[in-house]
Amino acid sequence: MNATIYRSAIHIAAICGLYLSLAMLVPFVVDLYYGHPDWKVFLVSAAIVGGFSLIAAAATYAGPPPFNKKMGFLLVNLLWAVFALGGAIPLWLSSMNLDFSKALFESVSAITTTGSTVIVGLDHAPPGILMWRSLLHWLGGIGIVAVGLFVMPYLRVGGMSFFKMESSETNEKPFARIATYTRAFIVVYVGITLVCAITYATLGMSRFDAINHAMSTVATGGFSTHDASFGYFKSLPILWAATFFMTLCSLPFSILIVLMVRGRLDALRDPQIFVFLGYLTLFSIAAAVYHRLANGVEFHQAVTHAFFSMASILSTTGAASEDYTLWGPFVVVLAFFATFLGGCSGSTAGGIKAYRFVIIFSSIRAGLYKLIYPNGIHAVRYGSATVDQDTQRTVFLFFCTYLMLWVIGSLALGALGHDVLTAVSSVVTALSNVGPGIGPVVGPAGNFSTFGDASLYILSLMMLLGRLEVLTVLVVLTPLFWKS
Amino acid sequence: MNATIYRSAIHIAAICGLYLSLAMLVPFVVDLYYGHPDWKVFLVSAAIVGGFSLIAAAATYAGPPPFNKKMGFLLVNLLWAVFALGGAIPLWLSSMNLDFSKALFESVSAITTTGSTVIVGLDHAPPGILMWRSLLHWLGGIGIVAVGLFVMPYLRVGGMSFFKMESSETNEKPFARIATYTRAFIVVYVGITLVCAITYATLGMSRFDAINHAMSTVATGGFSTHDASFGYFKSLPILWAATFFMTLCSLPFSILIVLMVRGRLDALRDPQIFVFLGYLTLFSIAAAVYHRLANGVEFHQAVTHAFFSMASILSTTGAASEDYTLWGPFVVVLAFFATFLGGCSGSTAGGIKAYRFVIIFSSIRAGLYKLIYPNGIHAVRYGSATVDQDTQRTVFLFFCTYLMLWVIGSLALGALGHDVLTAVSSVVTALSNVGPGIGPVVGPAGNFSTFGDASLYILSLMMLLGRLEVLTVLVVLTPLFWKS
Repeated sequence: MNATIYRSAIHIAAICGLYLSLAMLVPFVVDLYYGHPDWKVFLVSAAIVGGFSLIAAAATYAGPPPFNKKMGFLLVNLLWAVFALGGAIPLWLSSMNLDFSKALFESVSAITTTGSTVIVGLDHAPPGILMWRSLLHWLGGIGIVAVGLFVMPYLRVGGMSFFKMESSETNEKPFARIATYTRAFIVVYVGITLVCAITYATLGMSRFDAINHAMSTVATGGFSTHDASFGYFKSLPILWAATFFMTLCSLPFSILIVLMVRGRLDALRDPQIFVFLGYLTLFSIAAAVYHRLANGVEFHQAVTHAFFSMASILSTTGAASEDYTLWGPFVVVLAFFATFLGGCSGSTAGGIKAYRFVIIFSSIRAGLYKLIYPNGIHAVRYGSATVDQDTQRTVFLFFCTYLMLWVIGSLALGALGHDVLTAVSSVVTALSNVGPGIGPVVGPAGNFSTFGDASLYILSLMMLLGRLEVLTVLVVLTPLFWKS
Repeated sequence: MNATIYRSAIHIAAICGLYLSLAMLVPFVVDLYYGHPDWKVFLVSAAIVGGFSLIAAAATYAGPPPFNKKMGFLLVNLLWAVFALGGAIPLWLSSMNLDFSKALFESVSAITTTGSTVIVGLDHAPPGILMWRSLLHWLGGIGIVAVGLFVMPYLRVGGMSFFKMESSETNEKPFARIATYTRAFIVVYVGITLVCAITYATLGMSRFDAINHAMSTVATGGFSTHDASFGYFKSLPILWAATFFMTLCSLPFSILIVLMVRGRLDALRDPQIFVFLGYLTLFSIAAAVYHRLANGVEFHQAVTHAFFSMASILSTTGAASEDYTLWGPFVVVLAFFATFLGGCSGSTAGGIKAYRFVIIFSSIRAGLYKLIYPNGIHAVRYGSATVDQDTQRTVFLFFCTYLMLWVIGSLALGALGHDVLTAVSSVVTALSNVGPGIGPVVGPAGNFSTFGDASLYILSLMMLLGRLEVLTVLVVLTPLFWKS
C-alpha cells in the first residue's frame, strides 16, 4: 500500500515537473525577444527539468492513483520540493552568477510567494530572469489556492472546506464537480491578473513592468523588476491600484469565485473577511496618523503610503513604496507584529491568517466567561456556526508550532551571527511569506544578498513550512507517518 | 450577595494593608540603626497606610467572609493593588525624590518580584529604602506562592492543585488542614531565606548585602543593593550559590515542602521540574559554549556566567553578573525567548511556566498524530495523568492572552517613542516578571530611569497582569463579572 502511494505521489509530481519545464519557454521567448543571451539558459533548464521529469514519470507510471490522507500530505510536500528545485535551475545557470544556495532561496521565495530577494541590481537584470521570478510567483499562487481549496481542508490542516461552506450557506451545490470549479477558479485568477496588468499599464507602467507586477501582485508575492519596488514609479494611483489588488487577492478565492461568477455579494459575509479588512484598516489608519504627526508628511501622501505598506505586509506581498521603518518606532513595532497576521484562508496570502484569529478570539471570550460561570455554555463561534473541538485544536496546534518554528529559526540565525532584530524578523517574514523584515539589513530597503549559505537554507525551509501551513510538512517528518 | 462580596474583599485587603504598615517598621529600624534621616519617612508611611487600612477594615467589618470564585478573583486583584500602592508610599516620600510614577513602578516591580528598577545609584541609596525594596520582593514572593497554592487552582487560572497532586500521588492526606500546611510553607520559605543569607555572608557578602540579596533571590525578584547587581561581588562561588537558590525557588513550593518536611525525594518526579531543569541546562550549556567560542573566555568563567545568567532569566529573577547581551547575537536571541518561559507553577517564578509547555508540547504531539490517524486515540498527558479538555483550554487561553498583551503593550511603547527592541523586550520582561530586557536602554546593564510616566504605568500594569496569571485580572475586567 505504502509503495503504491509513494509511486503515485512521485508520478504526479513528475508530471507537474513537466509542466514546469514547459513554463520555462516563457522566459526563453522573453529573452529571445529582448535579445538577451540567457535564452539558452532557459532552453537548457527546460531540457534538464523536462528530461528528469519524463524519466521519473515513466518509471512510476501505473493505473489511476489512489488518494488518501497519506498521499495528500506526501504529494503537497513533493510538489513544492519539485517546483523549488526546478525553479532554481535557470537562476543558478543564468548570467547572474548566483550560488546554488542563493538560486534556491530565490526560487523558494518565488514559488512560496514570499518575495524576499538575494538579487541586487534588478533594474539591469536579464528580462527572462525577471519574468521567470514573476512567473514562479504566479504559479505558486495558483498552486497554493488550488491546494488550499481542494487538499488542505481534506487533510484538516487549514482552511474551511469550500464544499462545506457552499452547502451550509446556500443549500445548493453550484459547483458539484471539481473540474467545473477548477475552470472557474482559473478564469477568475487569470482574469484578475489581466485586469491588474491593464490597470498598471494604463497608470503608466511599461508593458513588461505591468505584466510582471500584476503576476507578483495577484500572487501576493512581492518581487519587482526594480530595486526600489513600487517606489520606482513615483505614482500614487499605481500604489492605490496595487493596494486594491493585494487586498482582493488576500480574500478567499472560493468567495471571489461565487462573487464574480454568480454575482453574489452576500458571499462576502465571512467573518474572516470582516476581521482581515478590520485589522488592515485599523493598522493603516494608525500608521497614517502616526506618519502624519511624527514626520509632518502631507495627508494624502501619509494615507497612501500607509495603506499600501500595511496592505503589502498583511496580504503578505511585501512590496515597498518607501522605507516605512523610517517613519518611527511605532510603525516598526506595527510592521513587526503585522508580519505574523496574514490574509484569509484559501487565498494567495500567508501568515497565521484571519480565520484562525476569529477562532482564537472567540475561544478567549468563551474561556474567560467559563472561568466566571464554569457551568454556563459558552460556545466558540465562527460567525453563526459553532466551531467543533477538532477545529479548535488544530488552530491552536498551528499557532503553537508556528511560534515554535519562529523561535527555533531565530536561534539558528542568531547562532549564525545575525543580530536579534534581523534574526527574529527575517524568520517570521519567511514563515509568513511576507518578504521584508525589520532593520537595516532585511528591512523594506534591504535584501538578503549578504546572508550566508546556512542562513539562506534555513530561511528557505521556513518559507516552505509557512507556505504549506506548517503542519503539512511536520506531519511528514513524524516517524509515525512512515510506518506502514 | 455582590455587596457582601465586595465588602469582605475590601475588609481582607485592608487587614493585609495593616500588616504592610507593620512591615514598614523594618526599614524604619534599619534607617535608625544606620543613622539615616529617612527613618521618619517610614514612620509617616506606616501611619498613613496603617490609618487608611484601619478605617477601611473597621468600615467593612462584619461576620466571617463568604468565599466563592467571584470573591477569589476580586480579592487577589485587590491585594496586589493595596500592596503596590502601599509599598510605593515610602519610596515616593523618601529622600530619593522619585516621581509618583517611578515610586509606583518600583513598588510594583518589587511586589511582583520583577526586579526592574528606575533607581540609579543603588550603592549610595538609603539603607532603609534598599531594605524596603528587598522586603517587598520577599513579601510578594510569599504572597504569590500562597495564592498559587490555595487560590489559583480553585479559580482554575493556573497551577495544579496541591491537594489534587497529593491525593493522587501518595494516596494519603498528610496536610489535611490548610493551617498546618501554611505553617510548613512559611517555615520552608523562611528557612531557605536564612540558609541563602548565611551562604552569601559566608562567601563574602556584608551582612546587609547578604540579607537583601537572600530575600531578593528567594523571591526570584532581582533587586540588588548595587548598580552592578551580583557583578559587584566579583565572586564565582557567590554566583553559583545564587544560581542554586534561584533555581530552587523556581520549583513548586508544594514539592519543596514535601521534600523538606517529609524528606521524600520522589516528590521531584514532576514533569514540569524535568522540563524546567531541562531547558535551564540546555540554554546554559548553549550560552556557555557560544560564549567560550565567540569570545575566548576561560571555560569556568563562561560556564559560571552562562548558568547564572540563564538561571536568572528562566527563574525570572533578573539579577546580573555581567552584560550577557554583549556575548554575541545568539545569546541575545536566547535571552529574549528565555524571557517568555519562566519557572514552575506554585513557585515565586513568573513567565508562561514549564507546566504549560508540558501540556502544549503534549498536545502538539497528540495533534500531529491525530492528523495522520483521525480515529486513533492520542490523549494529552501530563506525566502519567491525562489532561482534561478544560485544563487544555485554559492553558491555550493563557498562552494567547499573554501574547496578545505582549503585542498591545509593545505597540503602546512604540507609540510612546521607544525603539522596537526596547519596546518588545521591556513588555515581555514586565509580563514575565523577569527584570531586564534587551538593548542598551533596558538590557542587563541598563535600567528604566529614562522612561516617561505613561511607559512606566503601562509596564506596571503588565507586571501586575503577568504576576496574577493574566486571566485573574482580565476576568475582573469583563462586564459579565460585575453583573449580579
